[in-house]
Amino acid sequence: MDIKNFSFSELESLCQKIRDRILEVVSTNGGHLSSTLGATEIIVAMHKVFDPAKDPFIFDVSHQSYAHKLLTERWEDFSTLRQFGGLSGYTKPSESPMDYFVAGHSSTSISLGVGAAKAIALKKEQSSRIPVVVIGDGAMSAGMAYEALNELGDRKYPMVIILNDNEMSIAKPIGAISRMLSSAMASPFYQRFKKKTEQFVDNFGDGAHYLAKRFEESFKLITPGIMFEEMGIEYIGPIDGHDLKSLIETFQIAKTMGKPVLVHVQTIKGKGYEIAEGKHEKWHGVSPFDLKSGTANAKSSAKSATQIYTDALMHYAARNDKIVGVTAAMPSGTGLSELMEMYPERFWDVAIAEQHAVTSMAALAKEGFKPFCTIYSTFLQRGYDQVIHDVCLMDLPVVFAMDRAGIVGEDGETHQGAFDISFLRLIPNMTLCAPRDEKSFHQIVGYAAAYEHPCAIRYPRGAFLNADLPESIPFETGKSQLLIANESDILFIGYGNGVGRAAQTIECMEKKPSLLDLRFVKPLDSDMLRSMAQKHKRWYVFSDSSRMGGVGSALMEWQAQERIYDVNVITFEYEDKFIKHGNTKLVEESLGLLPAQLAAKVIVE
Amino acid sequence: MDIKNFSFSELESLCQKIRDRILEVVSTNGGHLSSTLGATEIIVAMHKVFDPAKDPFIFDVSHQSYAHKLLTERWEDFSTLRQFGGLSGYTKPSESPMDYFVAGHSSTSISLGVGAAKAIALKKEQSSRIPVVVIGDGAMSAGMAYEALNELGDRKYPMVIILNDNEMSIAKPIGAISRMLSSAMASPFYQRFKKKTEQFVDNFGDGAHYLAKRFEESFKLITPGIMFEEMGIEYIGPIDGHDLKSLIETFQIAKTMGKPVLVHVQTIKGKGYEIAEGKHEKWHGVSPFDLKSGTANAKSSAKSATQIYTDALMHYAARNDKIVGVTAAMPSGTGLSELMEMYPERFWDVAIAEQHAVTSMAALAKEGFKPFCTIYSTFLQRGYDQVIHDVCLMDLPVVFAMDRAGIVGEDGETHQGAFDISFLRLIPNMTLCAPRDEKSFHQIVGYAAAYEHPCAIRYPRGAFLNADLPESIPFETGKSQLLIANESDILFIGYGNGVGRAAQTIECMEKKPSLLDLRFVKPLDSDMLRSMAQKHKRWYVFSDSSRMGGVGSALMEWQAQERIYDVNVITFEYEDKFIKHGNTKLVEESLGLLPAQLAAKVIVE
Repeated sequence: MDIKNFSFSELESLCQKIRDRILEVVSTNGGHLSSTLGATEIIVAMHKVFDPAKDPFIFDVSHQSYAHKLLTERWEDFSTLRQFGGLSGYTKPSESPMDYFVAGHSSTSISLGVGAAKAIALKKEQSSRIPVVVIGDGAMSAGMAYEALNELGDRKYPMVIILNDNEMSIAKPIGAISRMLSSAMASPFYQRFKKKTEQFVDNFGDGAHYLAKRFEESFKLITPGIMFEEMGIEYIGPIDGHDLKSLIETFQIAKTMGKPVLVHVQTIKGKGYEIAEGKHEKWHGVSPFDLKSGTANAKSSAKSATQIYTDALMHYAARNDKIVGVTAAMPSGTGLSELMEMYPERFWDVAIAEQHAVTSMAALAKEGFKPFCTIYSTFLQRGYDQVIHDVCLMDLPVVFAMDRAGIVGEDGETHQGAFDISFLRLIPNMTLCAPRDEKSFHQIVGYAAAYEHPCAIRYPRGAFLNADLPESIPFETGKSQLLIANESDILFIGYGNGVGRAAQTIECMEKKPSLLDLRFVKPLDSDMLRSMAQKHKRWYVFSDSSRMGGVGSALMEWQAQERIYDVNVITFEYEDKFIKHGNTKLVEESLGLLPAQLAAKVIVE
Repeated sequence: MDIKNFSFSELESLCQKIRDRILEVVSTNGGHLSSTLGATEIIVAMHKVFDPAKDPFIFDVSHQSYAHKLLTERWEDFSTLRQFGGLSGYTKPSESPMDYFVAGHSSTSISLGVGAAKAIALKKEQSSRIPVVVIGDGAMSAGMAYEALNELGDRKYPMVIILNDNEMSIAKPIGAISRMLSSAMASPFYQRFKKKTEQFVDNFGDGAHYLAKRFEESFKLITPGIMFEEMGIEYIGPIDGHDLKSLIETFQIAKTMGKPVLVHVQTIKGKGYEIAEGKHEKWHGVSPFDLKSGTANAKSSAKSATQIYTDALMHYAARNDKIVGVTAAMPSGTGLSELMEMYPERFWDVAIAEQHAVTSMAALAKEGFKPFCTIYSTFLQRGYDQVIHDVCLMDLPVVFAMDRAGIVGEDGETHQGAFDISFLRLIPNMTLCAPRDEKSFHQIVGYAAAYEHPCAIRYPRGAFLNADLPESIPFETGKSQLLIANESDILFIGYGNGVGRAAQTIECMEKKPSLLDLRFVKPLDSDMLRSMAQKHKRWYVFSDSSRMGGVGSALMEWQAQERIYDVNVITFEYEDKFIKHGNTKLVEESLGLLPAQLAAKVIVE
């Protein structure tokens, strides 16, 4: 949409239309709501002042970019938001040339901006192009943002960074930076103080005036901007993020300054939808809901794996005061909020800071505590070196509770929990295990709480796949559980949620194979596997994980070491591709992973 | 050594003895020199004021901790520094209970301090224990340090952070932070300015005095400390890091403040060894050298892989101005310094900031450039999510040039390049390849410069293993090169430096197997492998990488997908253990990886 010639009132009514469209679609499809509503004026002003066809528009996390999608020829298609085959909930260049980059994980935007700025300088396009970055205050806590500012402040590439400050990330913001952002200058106190000083100084001569002016300048430094200015980034703000006129004027100034400028914009999350306005975590990402009442439409009643984790951890934390835990800005997503409320001195939200989360827990483990480092599978990628260098090299008993392992549904490509088995399995001293249902999850939390080495537990988004199986027995390191023993050449081996998938596949089959719940992909249950290798010559592997380096791969390595050459391993793990977004069932169907599809792939003799 | 009752002159002569011992051993064994010489007084003062038996002494990177080793019952054993079976060049709890944590990678210390502080608070030991962190100014550029400060400034746990500011990391420090550290307050200008203002204000009344005082206070903020104070960390400094008396007095004050305090200490790198004093990169880590002249003892004349990389990249960069590159504070270690000098506008040192390095290069690739992201194998672990989320998901043509793949020798456990194949292989869109000698390396750099997808190249520390083999043919995606074709049941498959190892193993054997240079572990050369599977039923894999998820594993996965069940894969990759430090040959011998040892393991029919 070309809005360059829109009048203010046209722009204002455009904002209203955008909000209406967002509410219409998100209340139907679910999605990110409050941050994108809050960023409406920012994005409209960006489109007025800059040009996404040439200026790189870089949205951090990009869940706030819906208005940008609507303004770039996706108004109609927006109804397919987050649906399988439809628009992504994040920016995505394959969807529109106006989307500069993929985003989904936080705090990458300033680095991208620096890279784009370097390219623009090399191409000598500085007179016609400038990177425009939108980053939330929550994302500023991650070290990566700081690494990028550090270089930017030194090299001073022209760039506009719009700090969208709604005083929260997903949850309430944590840390010194967020406190600083909401401090001095924004307050009426500063304004009053300034006035008083001016009056006071009027009684003295020029020298005092000079001093007072310097004083004021110095004092100004004690504002949200000081840190950025100290780093060499110009600071403007804070300005009202819902005042289109100031936004446009400020962006126009920032655009022509020829150096890096941070525009501090204060917005209200959920702006324009009264029920959500200023509300924290609840309205960040939502399921379909009734627009009038704000109540969520009926949801599945099956207990989520997250809730089981919370219940189990509450149980053990009550009995063992050495249990501590951490979340990186996902208290409710990871189920830790209840624990933080009950044991505020033992459970911490350290903000979006996975590296720090992992390593600080390593020190607690060294001191005799039992940390539960609760991070989504996909976000543990952000603390990878810390898992290796700070936890496993020291062989410390940190538990990694990895929620959202497997396909995560509508969030899609950037958030799939596909890789954790492959990237953790190779780390010496690491133990990997997974529950398959509520009972086994409860047991595994108890097992992990007593375990004396690093271990990682993976579990799915939502509920475990349901299956009628023998009860879970207590966990013992490296021990599997044989669930179904049949006279068959075929053995199904399930891991985690894969056990339910295997069991449901068996239900689709006439000749029933045996079924082993592997439980530990590291270390493997050599005794059991040896005995299985004698009875079953075809093993089918069920696990919601990448095939490369995954569970099947572990079994093959084991066979090679055991010199077992007469057993075939066929794995139903994910192929070597990034997995698209959409309803989990539909995505799985597209990958041929539904039980009936899998049953058809099994060759029965 | 209990130095609590030492007089100042005794402490001063102790510093001299420590320096002499360090120089004696490092000139013989090699090791980190200038940073540890510079930190001598800091460490002696720490031992005077704090107690490593209860206060967690946390050394960032810990290459500066030699004096600490000498003071904690390792004076004699220090002669075994960095030797196989001897003392580690880093702190290591298994070596001494006075070593709180393993370190080797940078910027973990403040996170560890925060974790320790949480534990101390939970144990109610705050009256008797306090974490003491030593971190260099170079390490402050990594985001992880900032993530930890962000939480610390908010929660305000008592902690002493000693910022050892020698105005360099390994190389010259980069970025806004380091510039800030060396700014205002330290300068004589500030002192003169302050005096002048005081005189000026004397001419006015009380009000002006008040203003001036406030002004001075405000002005103080424009000092190295402002950023820390804004973050909620008390700042003291800068103080002379070679003045034992000020150090001890300051540490004593900091110890009792009951909150987080950063003590900014300025030191001279190499202090006490005139030839190295104040010198940058050259004296950071050294090979054995002559103490009198400072000249290095004779070194191997074989051309290092790093030098080959530099030469090749210089060659292609001269012909293709789209080639750009980055190093994360390792310009000479990675061989990029020559390129930075020749093409300062196309090659960047972004400081210790691997996350930012990777993602900023992703944006350059998006803009049509060809980035060579040159990072040691072990340090790429620190930018892992960025490789997945910012490079591979977008399928961008970033080249990861991974130096120090395989065993790295004396640096040891924390630095081994064992894992890169396993953690990169699982990423969709990634291509993995490796050269085996100078010619193939030159070719592969040219190949990568033209390749249109992400790819990662691994190569060893030092020179490639030497072998008399047919010449390398040009690289083609997913194509291997058959080097020796023999009538044998056995096929040796080498990858990277493993090709030389395989060839040397063949030299130890009477019956000669065939030898394939795999070249690409992703994608694999299916045609060639299929033909090999018909001729050779036992494959031995040679690669300097972890067995879990490694090259052997890739071949097994391929066989399973191809339904090839009559070929055995035996891999000579690293077992699932962290690999100790020491001379590479000795380490390899301990792992049974020398050619003669490997030949003995091969079962010849």
